[in-house]
Amino acid sequence: MAQREATLTKPPRSLGRLEDLVAWLAHWQGHAPPRLERVEVLVFAGNHGIVRRGVSAYPAEVTAQMVANFSSGGAAVNQLARTAGAALRVIPLDLDAPTADFTEQPALGEQDFLDAVATGCAAVTPDCDLVCLGEMGIGNTTAASAIAAALFGGGGARWAGRGTGVDEDGLTRKRDAIDRGLNRHAALLHDPLAVAAALGGRELAAILGATLAARRQRVPVLLDGFVCTAAVAPLAKLRADTLAHALAGHVSAEAGHRMLLEELKLTPLLDLNMRLGEASGAAAAVLLLRAALACHTGMATFAEAGVSDKPADDTQAPKAG
Amino acid sequence: MAQREATLTKPPRSLGRLEDLVAWLAHWQGHAPPRLERVEVLVFAGNHGIVRRGVSAYPAEVTAQMVANFSSGGAAVNQLARTAGAALRVIPLDLDAPTADFTEQPALGEQDFLDAVATGCAAVTPDCDLVCLGEMGIGNTTAASAIAAALFGGGGARWAGRGTGVDEDGLTRKRDAIDRGLNRHAALLHDPLAVAAALGGRELAAILGATLAARRQRVPVLLDGFVCTAAVAPLAKLRADTLAHALAGHVSAEAGHRMLLEELKLTPLLDLNMRLGEASGAAAAVLLLRAALACHTGMATFAEAGVSDKPADDTQAPKAG
Repeated sequence: MAQREATLTKPPRSLGRLEDLVAWLAHWQGHAPPRLERVEVLVFAGNHGIVRRGVSAYPAEVTAQMVANFSSGGAAVNQLARTAGAALRVIPLDLDAPTADFTEQPALGEQDFLDAVATGCAAVTPDCDLVCLGEMGIGNTTAASAIAAALFGGGGARWAGRGTGVDEDGLTRKRDAIDRGLNRHAALLHDPLAVAAALGGRELAAILGATLAARRQRVPVLLDGFVCTAAVAPLAKLRADTLAHALAGHVSAEAGHRMLLEELKLTPLLDLNMRLGEASGAAAAVLLLRAALACHTGMATFAEAGVSDKPADDTQAPKAG
Repeated sequence: MAQREATLTKPPRSLGRLEDLVAWLAHWQGHAPPRLERVEVLVFAGNHGIVRRGVSAYPAEVTAQMVANFSSGGAAVNQLARTAGAALRVIPLDLDAPTADFTEQPALGEQDFLDAVATGCAAVTPDCDLVCLGEMGIGNTTAASAIAAALFGGGGARWAGRGTGVDEDGLTRKRDAIDRGLNRHAALLHDPLAVAAALGGRELAAILGATLAARRQRVPVLLDGFVCTAAVAPLAKLRADTLAHALAGHVSAEAGHRMLLEELKLTPLLDLNMRLGEASGAAAAVLLLRAALACHTGMATFAEAGVSDKPADDTQAPKAG
């Protein structure tokens, strides 16, 4: 791996992060060179009781409508997954039974939370070379902001953003709902998994489960945007290296995402002002992994190409230089 | 164009820069939707008399060796262009006749400079949908740094970087060579094209010519790294909007590139710590344009997908919210 990399016809480290990506893939897949033959994009969908507090620009019905759109191939992630050579799978979780309004009670009871985690675990196929995780769920940036605030402090003022495009009044309601949720569940904020259940949602719990299963199966993971990152943040809070097999596909325009990535020490691959969710940023980042792998496997070595890898002789420099 | 974009099944502007890229392609190509059927990567190669000052980690022979490597398909840019569905063309410019040492006389005389510009102009095919520009030339980060210093001030200390990986002594010689060049040609630093001739090189002049020809033919351009950006910087200095048809494919790890992009108000598409040149960063960025175009042309509209594009009714919010 590293040996071959050092012989390729380029100055050492000149492909920068592309070289890191190949090494990361190989490490987690456990073979060199790594493979990207079977890449899966998993989009988990859920509905949220918090929507009744007027925190989103879109009505809750859009979650199911978008799931239908994913199935018929009309969403952005369908085009991105196809472009990236990845298979898309959409997993709706009880869309007819939204979570509870977390300002009043835990969003998910323990059993509901564990069921969603298990669904996420089961969605990762062990012979997959790479999995991209994403979500769809009207209201779920409110859940994600609440989780981030619970884990890293700062309340609704720090973490709430526009989501799909809520107006100023909606943003005020969103901040308020987050702060009410933090107050309501103050007694369990020390427990990252209890935070995930009380303030999160089924699609977030499934992403957490999928990330755990991928780790056990040594499948590398590309995370999508703010909601996806907030979904796995409780894992990092439990143990710092739990996300070592995961990279941030991109940093989104959603206000809290950059801060959250910094808290988790994740450096995003793309920074394109996207804020769509549905695994769109992760799917786009697969293209970079394909580019990286193509360089690693396709390039000639110095010997094969007859290119000099000897440093220039310093005596070339004039004494006066 | 903008009309269709507004009907696609996503919140307005949620694909961020991907939407801008499609609009930019359509504007310069003059048709909507834009096309990416014929994408060309042009790599210009030249040799530099300044190499005798010990400014590079590699000997000058590597330029021709790498041109052979491009031709036989073994370089990084071959793999990246293939991954991005782009055709690669390599144009060596008088490799056996290096430019003059610019600390002693102008790197290129007027006729040599104009010949190289003309070669670059002729390399752009008018029916091309997009052109990526890049270079190969041992010693050419010294030329690029000298041009940047001449146009934007600050001398060798501000602009010299490690290039292919020169050591500390080499970096000192590089800074010194740049400052000597600036002194030698002080009388013509007010004239951006004279700067390009006196401190640049044939491959840089060809990139300048290709960028001009692409503008006249309305072919959108992706620029590569520091050398490529320095090559076109004289055009921006002549008239601010001359690079409106060009985007920065990436920002490289070479010290001066980020500063130079800021001077030119270019926001790079990728930031992956690459520093290879040879159009590698521009070719990788083509993947993002393909992703952007796939979304624009392949997504369903709200009406087609039966997705609600109406904002949530604010009366959903409880009065107490």
